[in-house]
Amino acid sequence: MSILIRDVQVEGDVTQVYIEGNRIAEIGRKREADIVIDGKGKIALPGFVNLHTHAAMTLFRGWGDDLDLSTWLETKIRPVEAKLTPDDVYWGTKLACLEMIKTGTTTFNDMYFHMDAAAKAVKEMGLRAFLAEGIVDLNDAERAAKQLRTAEEIYRRIEGMKMDRITPVLGPHAIYTVSKDSLLRIRELADKTGSLIHTHLSETKREVDDCVTETGVRPAKYLESIGFLAKDVIAAHGCWLDPSEIELLARTGTRVAHCPVSNMKLSTGQAMPYAAMKEAAVVMGLGTDGAASNNNLDMFETMKVAALLQKYAHHDPTVLPAIEAFQLANFGGARALGIDAGLIGVDRLADIILVDPRRPELTPRHEDLSNWVYSAHGNVVDTMICDGVVLMRGRRVRGEADILEKAAGVARNLVSRL
Amino acid sequence: MSILIRDVQVEGDVTQVYIEGNRIAEIGRKREADIVIDGKGKIALPGFVNLHTHAAMTLFRGWGDDLDLSTWLETKIRPVEAKLTPDDVYWGTKLACLEMIKTGTTTFNDMYFHMDAAAKAVKEMGLRAFLAEGIVDLNDAERAAKQLRTAEEIYRRIEGMKMDRITPVLGPHAIYTVSKDSLLRIRELADKTGSLIHTHLSETKREVDDCVTETGVRPAKYLESIGFLAKDVIAAHGCWLDPSEIELLARTGTRVAHCPVSNMKLSTGQAMPYAAMKEAAVVMGLGTDGAASNNNLDMFETMKVAALLQKYAHHDPTVLPAIEAFQLANFGGARALGIDAGLIGVDRLADIILVDPRRPELTPRHEDLSNWVYSAHGNVVDTMICDGVVLMRGRRVRGEADILEKAAGVARNLVSRL
Repeated sequence: MSILIRDVQVEGDVTQVYIEGNRIAEIGRKREADIVIDGKGKIALPGFVNLHTHAAMTLFRGWGDDLDLSTWLETKIRPVEAKLTPDDVYWGTKLACLEMIKTGTTTFNDMYFHMDAAAKAVKEMGLRAFLAEGIVDLNDAERAAKQLRTAEEIYRRIEGMKMDRITPVLGPHAIYTVSKDSLLRIRELADKTGSLIHTHLSETKREVDDCVTETGVRPAKYLESIGFLAKDVIAAHGCWLDPSEIELLARTGTRVAHCPVSNMKLSTGQAMPYAAMKEAAVVMGLGTDGAASNNNLDMFETMKVAALLQKYAHHDPTVLPAIEAFQLANFGGARALGIDAGLIGVDRLADIILVDPRRPELTPRHEDLSNWVYSAHGNVVDTMICDGVVLMRGRRVRGEADILEKAAGVARNLVSRL
Repeated sequence: MSILIRDVQVEGDVTQVYIEGNRIAEIGRKREADIVIDGKGKIALPGFVNLHTHAAMTLFRGWGDDLDLSTWLETKIRPVEAKLTPDDVYWGTKLACLEMIKTGTTTFNDMYFHMDAAAKAVKEMGLRAFLAEGIVDLNDAERAAKQLRTAEEIYRRIEGMKMDRITPVLGPHAIYTVSKDSLLRIRELADKTGSLIHTHLSETKREVDDCVTETGVRPAKYLESIGFLAKDVIAAHGCWLDPSEIELLARTGTRVAHCPVSNMKLSTGQAMPYAAMKEAAVVMGLGTDGAASNNNLDMFETMKVAALLQKYAHHDPTVLPAIEAFQLANFGGARALGIDAGLIGVDRLADIILVDPRRPELTPRHEDLSNWVYSAHGNVVDTMICDGVVLMRGRRVRGEADILEKAAGVARNLVSRL
């Protein structure tokens, strides 16, 4: 299968983008293709990489806002999560994929439950995804054994789908919910299988304080001391990292997903120390976190809020300029996940969005990049190609009305079961 | 002229909204009307009130981001502003109105230059606006005389248009750009004419420090000491207000426009102390500020960022919950400006938007209000009625393509003159 995007603007020049299979095969020449997309007046950008989310939590969008973290978790989220079925996760993930397609995200790094059901949804929706079954053992050996068994089984099932664009990942939730033994076992599994590990790290001050009380060291140091950190680890948040921890992350190659909207909404109390992490060359990307704490999956918004938060937190408007926010949102995330995406170039994965700039909020065009980061929202995306397949044209996605109806029904039913 | 919005949801109930002239005349009964709008499946909300903006600065969108405030002003903004013509302001304001219509803002409080040209744009576009010619005398008596003459002349010209929905306002820029004599003269004029006053207050720490150095007191105290503060004053920002100043604002009835996006982008260093101001019952609303420091005029985004910033700054996720952000964005602003808008009710001004919730980011609907504040962007607005006139239906606005082209041309030309 081949696609030609005709007369589209790529980094300032109007050109032709030719896709063969799931890769960009040529840029510049007009060629025959199975599908021809008229890109006239539009701009091609790399699809976004959402480096940390819990996709099926779209079902809990607006279900408990403006609460403190423990009230939110204990009275709102855990009660509904306890009732979650694979079918719920399937429809929640379908809804998340639909929202991501409509806002320009081609790849997402997900951690949740019943991830084989999530994989089925992703397979149907056409996105690229890294899927981790969340592991939470609460220091209970029996529970740990069961959770690891389930996680391994789901890992194998997703692997068994043999789809390039769907990758199973190991998902220990966090140091405060997963025992040292389980973390060590997961490290072993990752070393054996070559899998990525997706976890949460240093999100709240309480996590740091408890870790220091229990282990004598801060969270990143604790993980490093047990040999857990490496370049296959993607750690979400990193709000409370201190300079010594940043150095550890840089040295071990650990990746960090900055989730500014969620951090502000849940009031984690401190912004990820971006400037120091950039200085130390930590590999970073941006994540929306789940829709329960954001409450959308729009990476355009996340780019802007990342830039705003870092400027605010550093008392310096020059920190995290538009170009860096943009690169974090696509190339940074792609690098973190080890995929050839996040750039439009020959031999790269064909994960591309087309934006139509003829809109009031994108006028004038003194600086397109500034417009993407500071002025746009996800609705500026007109067309999406992921893995060489057209998933949206003219903002139309196949099956949209059905997904909205089914996901809404599942969400209503889920909270009514409480 | 009459409008009937049929079968539309208002605060949870499906009903009929009947508009006669520029007011909501009846809610509940189906009636004959000149224009019938099918509201089935849609939700009617009060249009937003943008309590602080510089509309024509849309021309400078993306023209100098990620710079410190003085570099930004001195190398980017002031050089282009020095070249501004009435025609530039006319097209910049047209563009701003177009963007506001497409994102749900029915009323805006504007301060800029050549405001008679802005008024012409607003008249054509159909929005409700409060327009202040910015007064900047830099403590120069000759300049002050000239500026006040110009401002008064433009005030009279706008008044002479005799349009209910366009109100002239007095616009002393800020205490650091306007002399005490001019402030006193403006206070006199306001007392005589009943005009509102639109100014900036306590945006940066430098403003506070300089004021203390020069006058011995903080900015709000200084303004109060010269008899300037009253309930006709709308002060933008208020980032650095201290408790004694908050008490003064509450006592004098001074209104404050919170502009969280601009404050974060320019790194003003501190968030407006919302919780204390709410406690003191200060009348507050939300503003986008100009597109040069935001870089859009989307009040949906501003509601979300206001809630995020306040939670972050107060270290408390319960501060500024969705309902308060929503009310600040419409009723708060309307109250600050003294207009019968910001609520959908009989005898209120017919400033209404219709939102279509059948979208992925607004699914499920556990809590609509949460969806408007935390999940939506301006593009969810399908229909807008302002002052009893339909300005947008199905997201189509008359003359859109022409405005985009002309405003883009004017903006290009403006920077090329440098």
